[in-house]
Amino acid sequence: MDRVEGNKLASQSMKNEWVNVKKMVDKEIKKIAEEIIFPEDLKSAAFHLINAGGKRIRPFMLMLSAATFGVPYKVSLPAAVSIELLHNFTLIHDDIMDKDEYRRGVPTTHVTYGEPMAILAGDFLFSHLHKYLIEKYLELGVSRDVIINVILALSEAMDNICYGQTMDLMPKKYIKTIDDYLRMVYYKTASLIEVSTYIGAILGTNEPDKINKLRTYGKNIGIAFQIADDILGIYGDTKVTGKPVGNDIRMGKHTILVMMALNKMSEEEKKIFLNIFGNMSATDDQIKIAIDILNKYNVRREATKIMENLASEAIKALRGLPDNKYKQYLEELSYFIIYREK
Amino acid sequence: MDRVEGNKLASQSMKNEWVNVKKMVDKEIKKIAEEIIFPEDLKSAAFHLINAGGKRIRPFMLMLSAATFGVPYKVSLPAAVSIELLHNFTLIHDDIMDKDEYRRGVPTTHVTYGEPMAILAGDFLFSHLHKYLIEKYLELGVSRDVIINVILALSEAMDNICYGQTMDLMPKKYIKTIDDYLRMVYYKTASLIEVSTYIGAILGTNEPDKINKLRTYGKNIGIAFQIADDILGIYGDTKVTGKPVGNDIRMGKHTILVMMALNKMSEEEKKIFLNIFGNMSATDDQIKIAIDILNKYNVRREATKIMENLASEAIKALRGLPDNKYKQYLEELSYFIIYREK
Repeated sequence: MDRVEGNKLASQSMKNEWVNVKKMVDKEIKKIAEEIIFPEDLKSAAFHLINAGGKRIRPFMLMLSAATFGVPYKVSLPAAVSIELLHNFTLIHDDIMDKDEYRRGVPTTHVTYGEPMAILAGDFLFSHLHKYLIEKYLELGVSRDVIINVILALSEAMDNICYGQTMDLMPKKYIKTIDDYLRMVYYKTASLIEVSTYIGAILGTNEPDKINKLRTYGKNIGIAFQIADDILGIYGDTKVTGKPVGNDIRMGKHTILVMMALNKMSEEEKKIFLNIFGNMSATDDQIKIAIDILNKYNVRREATKIMENLASEAIKALRGLPDNKYKQYLEELSYFIIYREK
Repeated sequence: MDRVEGNKLASQSMKNEWVNVKKMVDKEIKKIAEEIIFPEDLKSAAFHLINAGGKRIRPFMLMLSAATFGVPYKVSLPAAVSIELLHNFTLIHDDIMDKDEYRRGVPTTHVTYGEPMAILAGDFLFSHLHKYLIEKYLELGVSRDVIINVILALSEAMDNICYGQTMDLMPKKYIKTIDDYLRMVYYKTASLIEVSTYIGAILGTNEPDKINKLRTYGKNIGIAFQIADDILGIYGDTKVTGKPVGNDIRMGKHTILVMMALNKMSEEEKKIFLNIFGNMSATDDQIKIAIDILNKYNVRREATKIMENLASEAIKALRGLPDNKYKQYLEELSYFIIYREK
């Protein structure tokens, strides 16, 4: 399957639905922000990043998962918005931890508002989503059992994200093998996607088998999502991604590609590579040398294979779920995710 | 009422009960930490501060409030522990924001583990307490309605804490009057004490009138708690508090005492005072000059009066609640809080 085929597999009708859902989510987020009247600095900091953009892919996956069981968007929207708030909270704090200065084309929250306000902005989003979610779901008459299960699922996912972020902060200690890396990716990235499809499912059904199918879908596509990111971070078209060639090499990111290649490099190659890797002032020529070493070990092809297998597992998990356009969109979305250009 | 009388009012039997509750809380916290097996660095960072000490006054207030309605400690314990986890989460993040290097006699979490791990440690405590609380309460058969109300109350309190911390981070913008200051204190400090007694109440009764009484108790005693802190921060016995004389003046803390005095100082006095206030290398002689200015305006007496009025309102709110030793302890605790020496 090549990229072009992948794009073909994501229908215009799915993309339209996504735009539609994104509008609903953004409108609701705007409403939440408007209802917070005090203090304005906290509000600005908390909604700075979320207002700067984002694909709203997690809300979309949650709402598609719920819709597969006939749950109207009106009911899945609050959970979907909560996931997006949670996601943005983690991004704000991650950006502080990683000292990232730009995201979504704007200066990050801590760069704009200072670290203290950025820490607080994240804390507030995390706190407030619980209040928002509970109030909305009591209002909509969602069962108490479901509300509790949704909150439990969110906290389990957030626990996982903390585990993954710890591993990512201390790669020398926690990420020694490809399996460690995939575990970290599951915790840090995939668990939030897994919980999106999981929550969508529990809003729509109480059949454990069907819930598990959607969870498996989310987990696998979530890991594939990160591998796609890893590939784009080194091989992405700079005109599309907006990031310099080999960005992840300059940043010293221990992606799956780097892990794979490091396992195979000669001592001499390793010395050359590690001299360039993580060097923010590496020249384009040096980056080319580093990428040539990666290419020698076919890591792009190998990583792509793992990613495609995960996507294929994800799609397989959808079998046995009600056949409708929402399930079809989930399948198309998985192609979109792995073959996206940015 | 002087300090000695206050101490007399806190019975030995109340103090014994407190020690007893503290042991239960600490044992449960230890158990929670033990169940987290991975990754060890996150676990160490998350439990660093909580293991360093703390009075567990919020859990005690929650458990006393619940016990007033006959709720056994076994049932109130998980909520009480959750409050302590929430409290420690806010302390870890506050210490980063305020660049505080010591707390409870040990280096703060970010000093010990670095800022990224400290941010994450706080996030994890906040996340994990939801998982812990829900699992425990489902296990104990607590009603779904109550579980949801407890979580809603926690998120509302945490929202408030974020509002208060924002005000505290930007005092020039948000704290112009004594009323602003008291509002900040309510948000930042009292709301967590208020939610402790509130949650205790909703675990034990669904009579709104009684719930409100305990909420009022918590709110008032919570604000009084901070004013007591403000007084200790300037007038505390250094041998007891372990902090240097006039510590809050060197730190430049806009406490109620400073706010009151600044309103009354002449321009000349203000100039002298503000030259010392917030100057970490101010000499003891300079601190004495600053305190003399505060004394000139009787701010200690004035603040003590406000504090005692709040405590008296708190105790008044207890009227009409079931008469038993737990209610008695709550009353004694309010004296303890305002007349404590550290």
